[in-house]
Amino acid sequence: MRYKELKEITWRCNMELWHQRLIIYTFGNASTIDRDQGVFAIKPSGVPYEKLKAKDMVIVDLDNRTVEGKLRYSSDTKTHSVLYKNFSQIGGVVHTHSPYSVAWAQAKRSIPVLGTTHADHLTHEVPCTEVMSNEMIKGDYEEETGNQIIETFKKQKLTYKEIEMVLVACHGPFTWGSTPEKAVYNSIVLEELAKMALYTFLINPEIKEIKKELIDKHYFRKHGKNSYYGQNT
Amino acid sequence: MRYKELKEITWRCNMELWHQRLIIYTFGNASTIDRDQGVFAIKPSGVPYEKLKAKDMVIVDLDNRTVEGKLRYSSDTKTHSVLYKNFSQIGGVVHTHSPYSVAWAQAKRSIPVLGTTHADHLTHEVPCTEVMSNEMIKGDYEEETGNQIIETFKKQKLTYKEIEMVLVACHGPFTWGSTPEKAVYNSIVLEELAKMALYTFLINPEIKEIKKELIDKHYFRKHGKNSYYGQNT
Amino acid sequence: MRYKELKEITWRCNMELWHQRLIIYTFGNASTIDRDQGVFAIKPSGVPYEKLKAKDMVIVDLDNRTVEGKLRYSSDTKTHSVLYKNFSQIGGVVHTHSPYSVAWAQAKRSIPVLGTTHADHLTHEVPCTEVMSNEMIKGDYEEETGNQIIETFKKQKLTYKEIEMVLVACHGPFTWGSTPEKAVYNSIVLEELAKMALYTFLINPEIKEIKKELIDKHYFRKHGKNSYYGQNT
Amino acid sequence: MRYKELKEITWRCNMELWHQRLIIYTFGNASTIDRDQGVFAIKPSGVPYEKLKAKDMVIVDLDNRTVEGKLRYSSDTKTHSVLYKNFSQIGGVVHTHSPYSVAWAQAKRSIPVLGTTHADHLTHEVPCTEVMSNEMIKGDYEEETGNQIIETFKKQKLTYKEIEMVLVACHGPFTWGSTPEKAVYNSIVLEELAKMALYTFLINPEIKEIKKELIDKHYFRKHGKNSYYGQNT
Repeated sequence: MRYKELKEITWRCNMELWHQRLIIYTFGNASTIDRDQGVFAIKPSGVPYEKLKAKDMVIVDLDNRTVEGKLRYSSDTKTHSVLYKNFSQIGGVVHTHSPYSVAWAQAKRSIPVLGTTHADHLTHEVPCTEVMSNEMIKGDYEEETGNQIIETFKKQKLTYKEIEMVLVACHGPFTWGSTPEKAVYNSIVLEELAKMALYTFLINPEIKEIKKELIDKHYFRKHGKNSYYGQNT
Repeated sequence: MRYKELKEITWRCNMELWHQRLIIYTFGNASTIDRDQGVFAIKPSGVPYEKLKAKDMVIVDLDNRTVEGKLRYSSDTKTHSVLYKNFSQIGGVVHTHSPYSVAWAQAKRSIPVLGTTHADHLTHEVPCTEVMSNEMIKGDYEEETGNQIIETFKKQKLTYKEIEMVLVACHGPFTWGSTPEKAVYNSIVLEELAKMALYTFLINPEIKEIKKELIDKHYFRKHGKNSYYGQNT
Repeated sequence: MRYKELKEITWRCNMELWHQRLIIYTFGNASTIDRDQGVFAIKPSGVPYEKLKAKDMVIVDLDNRTVEGKLRYSSDTKTHSVLYKNFSQIGGVVHTHSPYSVAWAQAKRSIPVLGTTHADHLTHEVPCTEVMSNEMIKGDYEEETGNQIIETFKKQKLTYKEIEMVLVACHGPFTWGSTPEKAVYNSIVLEELAKMALYTFLINPEIKEIKKELIDKHYFRKHGKNSYYGQNT
Repeated sequence: MRYKELKEITWRCNMELWHQRLIIYTFGNASTIDRDQGVFAIKPSGVPYEKLKAKDMVIVDLDNRTVEGKLRYSSDTKTHSVLYKNFSQIGGVVHTHSPYSVAWAQAKRSIPVLGTTHADHLTHEVPCTEVMSNEMIKGDYEEETGNQIIETFKKQKLTYKEIEMVLVACHGPFTWGSTPEKAVYNSIVLEELAKMALYTFLINPEIKEIKKELIDKHYFRKHGKNSYYGQNT
């Protein structure tokens, strides 16, 4: 894929998040990787969405060196590159400060599986990381944010292909997917799940996760070799 | 009615749900039945609304066989056909994952009649089914979802002509009506009732259902032979 | 004023409520009175807003007789006429089922004066009526709804010129004003006050009304002979 | 800067608040100062936003005398001038009644630092003033509102350059910034922080402020000489 195309796709994904109102001003970023070339395109730092152009995207390699682009890359770039290096088959990463997802992250709570909308997308609660240690905060912070996510997945034995979203405690959501469009989709779905879960607890504070059988039924009718949801295209 | 017309109506109803923001991506489906021909048109599975066309609708018979259409029908099709078979005079069925209605379904709570907005539409709480048994989940799940709804109506002695909506526990709302447009209307009204009921409980957690006399007054000024609401057209 | 003009104004006020999303489908109505002629124009019953035309408005006299118009008038017409007869200087009445205002009405709670946004408009809580008696419900219900409002104002010694809004318990809001545009404004302001008050109690359930001095300061800088808010036009 | 330009900028800032739905009707005002001339442009009192024109803005000096303009200036003008006189390097002031911010002000609660969205903008809770004394209310109220803000900053040893927003108890938010556009930005960000903080407490009522290290990390990566966020333009 040529850089131009990579930038176009990345710009469209960024703009979609803004149009869907998951991002205001500069509160987020999306990136797309070209695995063959080992580079990804990412939103530049601090450029407001209403002024963002496809040509402003920055091409970065996995050692966080700017390969092409005049602007400084997103301050969250190192988090993206840690995710690309560890989650070897993802094609895109998205970070937003969408309010319902942020609220769960600020509450330091994972989002439990309260219904089939959640189970349609993942069989597990949306994990929330632990609060970062002072060493990590004072060190290479954005890289450590990525490490914290990887660590959470290792510790809880989660697989990034099944669980394509995470809440960074005190901060907000990161999502990914096989394509950047899927990462955008996951951010929007996560915001919806976070909203539904809050409303559910307000109606019934004693509610528990739904049973394993129902989770599996919904997940596996959409995913894996026995799925029967969607078109075979 | 020709298939083309049946598809057009069904497509318009699906799109209305999307325009009214009750559905994002592929989170729902609407269908329309032609009772004379014993077939219904329904949204295809997993096709996002922004790309949906009238010709994509699938014509299905009441044994869930595709009569016309190249695409695979909605994964919830069997739930629709159970409703059509048991509720003999309904003309349309709608399923969404609209957030306030889903929250009540996830909280496993029926929505009580808290005011006249509710009583204008039904004299009873919006019923919430029990959680499905493992046998039903592992069996013909979508058909069993329909059976669960029918069972709930039988057990609670409810009539589908008066109560045109239900919450499937842990899942979300289904609505129906004499026409598909009425089923869409009911989904939008249900979301509004679910929102108002949540806000009401947040203001006053001790609130009870309104009295029978007020429920009946509002319902019967809009429904039945002594109604005096609307135009005689 | 000619009927045509009266209908035009009333239609514009009705449409404004719909555009501002205080009303969905047929959930509300606005009317305008011509005091000289002793008639008012009101929305017809059950006609959805997207199809509503100025010529559909119905001209009614204060004995609830249709003076002009082919359609049946709003089912709430008698409530409007009671308000016009008792509140002798109002020019318009509005009724909606906007969700936050309805929630307070369903919770059977008056909205206390929690801040200056409220005090800018009225010095008193937004009163909520008592629940209507069975006799009143089974009698001339819509007229009794009006009577219930008048009774509430008498019992609590409130003046309709200062308090231009009320919550009918288990039902929803009615507002009025010197002009129909002011009645529309009051419905929108009430919905905002209802929303702010709910959020305030969620943050601090122990909160009390603000002090009299602050209420008076805000109210009287906008109203009465010493007001200094707005333009002298 | 010529008055015409000052008015244009101020009008654009006012309209932006309205377009972003932070203000309905006349519920707010924005102003811009020209330090060289010692005058500021501000919205006229009580003129609804849909009719507001750039030429309607009023030019006022720091003794609250109208320098140019036919309309009466905003009733909150004296609050603006107190802020301009005490916060010597701010370029704009904004006041709104946006619902989430107002809710915190009405709840008489400062908004604690619950996450990085907040820390990206300020290292401190958003302060809420004490309730104004009766003397201040009955005195020069709008000037005293400004004094109350200044007093809050002095008492709590806050600096206006770092904390560009405040909640006036029982009233609502005021924000400012080096430019009027920055003051508008701060009002929108504050509303977002207020919303996220409410949702966070609803999920976890026991939540505490995030740790100092994380606050500083986020604040100083965006502000000060070691910042690395945004472009060097």
